[in-house]
Amino acid sequence: MEERVKCTSLRSRIKSAKEAASMIKTGMTVGTSGFTPTGYPKAVPEALVEMVRDDDDFRINLYTGASVGQGLDGIMAEAGIINKRMPYQTNNSMRKALNSGDVHYTDIHLSHFAQQIRYGFYGKVDIALIEAAQITEEGYIVPTTSVGASPVFCSEAEQIIVEINTGKPLDLCGIHDIYQPEDPPNRKPIPLVNPVDRIGKPYIEVEPDKIKAIVITDQEDDPIGFAPVDENSSKIARNLIGFFEKEVEEGRLPHNLLPLQSGVGSVANAVLKGISDSEFKDLVFYSEVIQDNVLDLLDEGTFRFASGTSLTLSPDGFKRFYQKLEEYREKVLLRPMEISNNPEIIRRIGSIAMNTAIEADIFGNVNSTHIMGSKMMNGIGGSGDFTRAGYLSIFTTPSIAKNGDISAIVPMVSHVDHTEHDVNVIVTEQGLADLRGLSPIQRAETIIKNCAHPDYKELLNNYLKNIQNEAPHTPHQMSRALSWHEKFVNTKSMR
Amino acid sequence: MEERVKCTSLRSRIKSAKEAASMIKTGMTVGTSGFTPTGYPKAVPEALVEMVRDDDDFRINLYTGASVGQGLDGIMAEAGIINKRMPYQTNNSMRKALNSGDVHYTDIHLSHFAQQIRYGFYGKVDIALIEAAQITEEGYIVPTTSVGASPVFCSEAEQIIVEINTGKPLDLCGIHDIYQPEDPPNRKPIPLVNPVDRIGKPYIEVEPDKIKAIVITDQEDDPIGFAPVDENSSKIARNLIGFFEKEVEEGRLPHNLLPLQSGVGSVANAVLKGISDSEFKDLVFYSEVIQDNVLDLLDEGTFRFASGTSLTLSPDGFKRFYQKLEEYREKVLLRPMEISNNPEIIRRIGSIAMNTAIEADIFGNVNSTHIMGSKMMNGIGGSGDFTRAGYLSIFTTPSIAKNGDISAIVPMVSHVDHTEHDVNVIVTEQGLADLRGLSPIQRAETIIKNCAHPDYKELLNNYLKNIQNEAPHTPHQMSRALSWHEKFVNTKSMR
Repeated sequence: MEERVKCTSLRSRIKSAKEAASMIKTGMTVGTSGFTPTGYPKAVPEALVEMVRDDDDFRINLYTGASVGQGLDGIMAEAGIINKRMPYQTNNSMRKALNSGDVHYTDIHLSHFAQQIRYGFYGKVDIALIEAAQITEEGYIVPTTSVGASPVFCSEAEQIIVEINTGKPLDLCGIHDIYQPEDPPNRKPIPLVNPVDRIGKPYIEVEPDKIKAIVITDQEDDPIGFAPVDENSSKIARNLIGFFEKEVEEGRLPHNLLPLQSGVGSVANAVLKGISDSEFKDLVFYSEVIQDNVLDLLDEGTFRFASGTSLTLSPDGFKRFYQKLEEYREKVLLRPMEISNNPEIIRRIGSIAMNTAIEADIFGNVNSTHIMGSKMMNGIGGSGDFTRAGYLSIFTTPSIAKNGDISAIVPMVSHVDHTEHDVNVIVTEQGLADLRGLSPIQRAETIIKNCAHPDYKELLNNYLKNIQNEAPHTPHQMSRALSWHEKFVNTKSMR
Repeated sequence: MEERVKCTSLRSRIKSAKEAASMIKTGMTVGTSGFTPTGYPKAVPEALVEMVRDDDDFRINLYTGASVGQGLDGIMAEAGIINKRMPYQTNNSMRKALNSGDVHYTDIHLSHFAQQIRYGFYGKVDIALIEAAQITEEGYIVPTTSVGASPVFCSEAEQIIVEINTGKPLDLCGIHDIYQPEDPPNRKPIPLVNPVDRIGKPYIEVEPDKIKAIVITDQEDDPIGFAPVDENSSKIARNLIGFFEKEVEEGRLPHNLLPLQSGVGSVANAVLKGISDSEFKDLVFYSEVIQDNVLDLLDEGTFRFASGTSLTLSPDGFKRFYQKLEEYREKVLLRPMEISNNPEIIRRIGSIAMNTAIEADIFGNVNSTHIMGSKMMNGIGGSGDFTRAGYLSIFTTPSIAKNGDISAIVPMVSHVDHTEHDVNVIVTEQGLADLRGLSPIQRAETIIKNCAHPDYKELLNNYLKNIQNEAPHTPHQMSRALSWHEKFVNTKSMR
């Protein structure tokens, strides 16, 4: 314990999870560590849910870095103790709760969230609840396997509860680079010019006296799965890598490309696998989430550096990471999401943004959050930060879903998260549409031809041609624009 | 002329407009100066249109900074010689041409356009056609009343044609600050930390030998009107200024606010008038367009500095500006649009972005480009640059249009330019909706209550309530979401 809580004056604040949880009162806003189901607090949430089980009126606002695990989002949603949830989630129970109207969910660009907490846009943060590997001699906090919004919660909250997780190795110390920008109008340029740059400290500086409770635990994060690569994902990856090769050939991308951003899931994994199999090398990864396959690419030398805000590894991936931690320390950095997702940096370094669409329309608008216009899937997360500010913005999706009853290419998306102004390239297993410099009608023709599934091509062309004479710029018929979704809602098929 | 073309070796390139125009061949891409109808070339376009009048096959691509005047967009659209147009326009004839499908128009974030020209996303620029006040001794180009995308056209084009406009005073020299960022991955931070900072040169550096023709003209820009302030605009302004006062009171904005960005038009003018009448002083304006009322605010000391990319002044405004040029030189700077609209800077300085919506929906999505989903009005311009990267993003619109037959607040917008993730505040003459931190359903209730016109409140509430039990997160019915637009298309009224 001496190594875990080095600040001697704080050792008296070591408490049980129950004692710490009792600091959390109804009506409070709690900001926690965690970004993807890793590095989030578990002991205090569990104790809290146990404690307030019979209190029907108990409600808190839960703010996190991004998604967190069942041991936080899940149990709290199931206990019905969340009033407001920000800025992102992926948990089944939480999704159910917000789609049933039990939880108010605000879906925010991750790069906006951290600074807007500091600006006071979302009210006071009462308690920061942070999983840590260590409290330093000075009373500073070393995060564990993710950073997310922890720095801003620690600076803004009135009180801090630290969960020291002894299940996570002390060797994690040094893997973090914590930098918090000033606020306008006094803000200076963020001094990161190369994705490998260290610009901050290896810990979160806090006023030690704000740490009111330290809880010792060894509870594990939810085990993180790794989406297998299927045939369609491989086809999408091949289409995309062919495009990169052409861009290099034509001088629009350097031979080692530009810093890559990539989400999670089958397609993202297929793309990284495809890059591993390609001729590309000496690449840099500047993204949010570092998954198992990023370790593969680092090991084989395809990637020379990976910067993110969370280690989203499988149990085997963590074992491997911890075993070779001294080696990875030179090639991996975890940053606050205000830096990993910062548009100033993303634009400066020229990210290649690769994200997943739920659906795209023929004019290039992308829906990445809502099913049939109403039901929230996860949230926009960091996709908007990278898409808007990146050098190139790419969206991938299989051309059909639900055995073909849903076309991912539709006349009009049922919700817009990324506008036609922001989408450079759309890729499906059918092909790739390079939309740069195309007018709406040219975009429509290209997307239908290259990306739509053969079963839906004629229907899409009919939609376009029916109205094109009347409204040639952006041909749309208000009475039919959303008729495919309407049909699916009524008949369970867009056909 | 010695003062206008100081570079002696270039004087032999002085040619007639017709000679210069003959350099422009069919199929070429021409990038011109101009941002709003000021500072755009006039003599060569006029000669070109005259020259190719009988050539049915003659077509060029026209790229500009933003909108330009009748003497460029208008006459070329009327002559039918434009194939592709980027990135923004406001001209009647051009609007007609693109909405009839005669012109391919690509509507691009202004901050993206300049860098993506350099990246090669939009093909080669054959000729840069630039209005200038002077060619310096070194052969560099001093722009006139706007900068726009001129620097990037000059650096990327193979040949440059300069129109020296002797109708614009030589005293304009020194009012420009030209800085062009490097490209990734070698880009450094843009060194602008305060809106008053000079970071570049007072001229566009070019390879002098690329200047193949110099045309002397004194043709005037279109006279720029100034939208009068009506009663509804004044009400919108009062609602907004009340909000600013509250934000200052609650510590979320400093006493002199943060750098203001504002568009053009009646509401924008009313807001600046309102600020002039308020207690606010010592403000900074960091925007695109400097109109007559900005001079008023500078003169009276409400603004201490104004940075933009164009002087969009009335004839009287220009007279006044030129008369006191020595004084304004200390308080006014014109920058390339890649800097005026740069998200790195906008986020750093913390802009307050104030832009106009055509319509907004109850969930906070904003349409600023398309009428009834199909017909292009102007384009997104710089509104997305400021909205996404600013400290606060605000959209204004009167609550109704066309004598009440159109509600500007609708169930679902017919086109999305600014998503629910990007819109903090919506203001109409009815009131103001502060959307920060609200869930979709809370946003809907707030917008209907505070912003919708009384004639449409019940209809909007009915839409929401009808479906809210079925789809509580983002209540939408695909069959009715666009029914208000459908009704207007069919009956000329949403009622």
